Amino acid sequence: MSLIVTGSIGIDTVETPDGQKAESVLGGSSIYFAAGASFFTSVRLVAAVGEDFPAHFHKQFQRFDVCTDGLEERAGSKTFRWHGRYHANMNDRDTLDVQVNVLGEALPPVPDHYRDSKYIFLANTHPAGQLELLDQFPDRKLVVADTMDLWIDTEPGLLKQLLGKVDGFVLNDSEAKQLTGESNVIKAADAVLAMGPRFVVVKKGEHGAILRHQDGTGVLPAYPADAVIDPTGAGDSFASGMMGYLASVDDVSINAIRRAMAYGTVVASYTIEKFSTDRLAEIERSHIDQRLDEFAGHLDIGAGI
Amino acid sequence: MSLIVTGSIGIDTVETPDGQKAESVLGGSSIYFAAGASFFTSVRLVAAVGEDFPAHFHKQFQRFDVCTDGLEERAGSKTFRWHGRYHANMNDRDTLDVQVNVLGEALPPVPDHYRDSKYIFLANTHPAGQLELLDQFPDRKLVVADTMDLWIDTEPGLLKQLLGKVDGFVLNDSEAKQLTGESNVIKAADAVLAMGPRFVVVKKGEHGAILRHQDGTGVLPAYPADAVIDPTGAGDSFASGMMGYLASVDDVSINAIRRAMAYGTVVASYTIEKFSTDRLAEIERSHIDQRLDEFAGHLDIGAGI
Repeated sequence: MSLIVTGSIGIDTVETPDGQKAESVLGGSSIYFAAGASFFTSVRLVAAVGEDFPAHFHKQFQRFDVCTDGLEERAGSKTFRWHGRYHANMNDRDTLDVQVNVLGEALPPVPDHYRDSKYIFLANTHPAGQLELLDQFPDRKLVVADTMDLWIDTEPGLLKQLLGKVDGFVLNDSEAKQLTGESNVIKAADAVLAMGPRFVVVKKGEHGAILRHQDGTGVLPAYPADAVIDPTGAGDSFASGMMGYLASVDDVSINAIRRAMAYGTVVASYTIEKFSTDRLAEIERSHIDQRLDEFAGHLDIGAGI
Repeated sequence: MSLIVTGSIGIDTVETPDGQKAESVLGGSSIYFAAGASFFTSVRLVAAVGEDFPAHFHKQFQRFDVCTDGLEERAGSKTFRWHGRYHANMNDRDTLDVQVNVLGEALPPVPDHYRDSKYIFLANTHPAGQLELLDQFPDRKLVVADTMDLWIDTEPGLLKQLLGKVDGFVLNDSEAKQLTGESNVIKAADAVLAMGPRFVVVKKGEHGAILRHQDGTGVLPAYPADAVIDPTGAGDSFASGMMGYLASVDDVSINAIRRAMAYGTVVASYTIEKFSTDRLAEIERSHIDQRLDEFAGHLDIGAGI
């Protein structure tokens, strides 16, 4: 089933605590999402880059089954850039430099042949853009949005409008607390639910994710990774496995969402094994399914005696 | 099957971020452990208190099926005291006052009728005492020990001796990093395994626990609690459900340990709902089994389509 994503494309520079540095590599929320979701279904991308966008990034991205008819290379604009440095715990990071550039401009037009998209992921970007895109898909079956601390601070009104229009919302634990004022993650998730979406997924990085919906709860640890090189894109990769799986089985039930979150966990576990989309470029769907089986084994609590 | 525990008994004063304060309540690692494990099997306690130990604590503790023949009320000594204050995140805490008192003295003698104990839990205390106790049970089938940052700092040599003699070791994530110098929790667990035990359980508080053994891994989130009153004793309660279940089914296989960890998660989830052992005093085994079923549902990732 058709899956569309909009979000950022970035030229990233990433420094990790072991002294490694990836300079000017392909990044951004929609890139990580589209790459990860492409293992499950074909993906449509709506995003803009500037005229400085390196030609070899196109080649690198061709590895993934993503339609880039909605990718605009805008003359006179510059690509979004981000430079970050991770702390020793690999969970916290400092942004050393950020240049919004083309992300501060209008969204590119949505190609006509994208209009029948049914699964829509609004990766983190300005909520005005998320709202604008959302309305362009009359046949939408599942809309899930992500956000970040910046928009919670600066655009709470638009964000609440958005929450009234999406089916699902994903955000990390600190953002959930920031948005709702609740320090307990379950209470925070419930407060987000009260703003409109049918389900909320709170991402906790290396500590997994929590699903909360009207009738219950799901809790998942992260995949127990013993070699994290770069956590950039882990959250978008989580969403990519989740949405990619749901679109591939065309099922929006809570049961499907539970399994989808496990797929998301596995895709994220690959992303963090190398910089950029380098690790995703090496694997096949069969690797993902294999690791999902392994992960299911990790979660096994047996049947008792 | 017979389960024995040694560890601290304390008079605790606990302050929580919502302004509540529990003053001079029953606490200590062996108390939380014995109370929790008593839902699964009968428990034998070896521990010392001072002559200041309040009489009403005995009455409070009678609620639990624990043999206290090994509990010594030592004339001329004072009971261990701890005063702590939790941070807003409920995971970190400051110790405002600690008085080691009787915990700094010799262990009480082990009653003769305890000698046939097969399941042994060495709750956190001085590793010299843990080593001393361990040798007194020739029929031991499973020995698991806990520790804390203090002993990792001051008694690394004794701790390594202990690690060479136990079957399992439980410790929290910061302690695992401290003991091994590994910042990745999986690598840290592997480094602990290399010191001797057959399995290691790394406790991550509200983020669950990780099991690591020679042939694999288990990962469990915590029970998604929406009302944490006081996290004191959560780690000991986790161990209590784990060891209590294992002793009750008399099974030390990895499969049994996986299920035991889920029971531990559930017992801990009750402990934190009130101060001291107050919540444990209100529940029955059936409540634990009910919540285990609920928790298994939380972990469900479905079978796919």
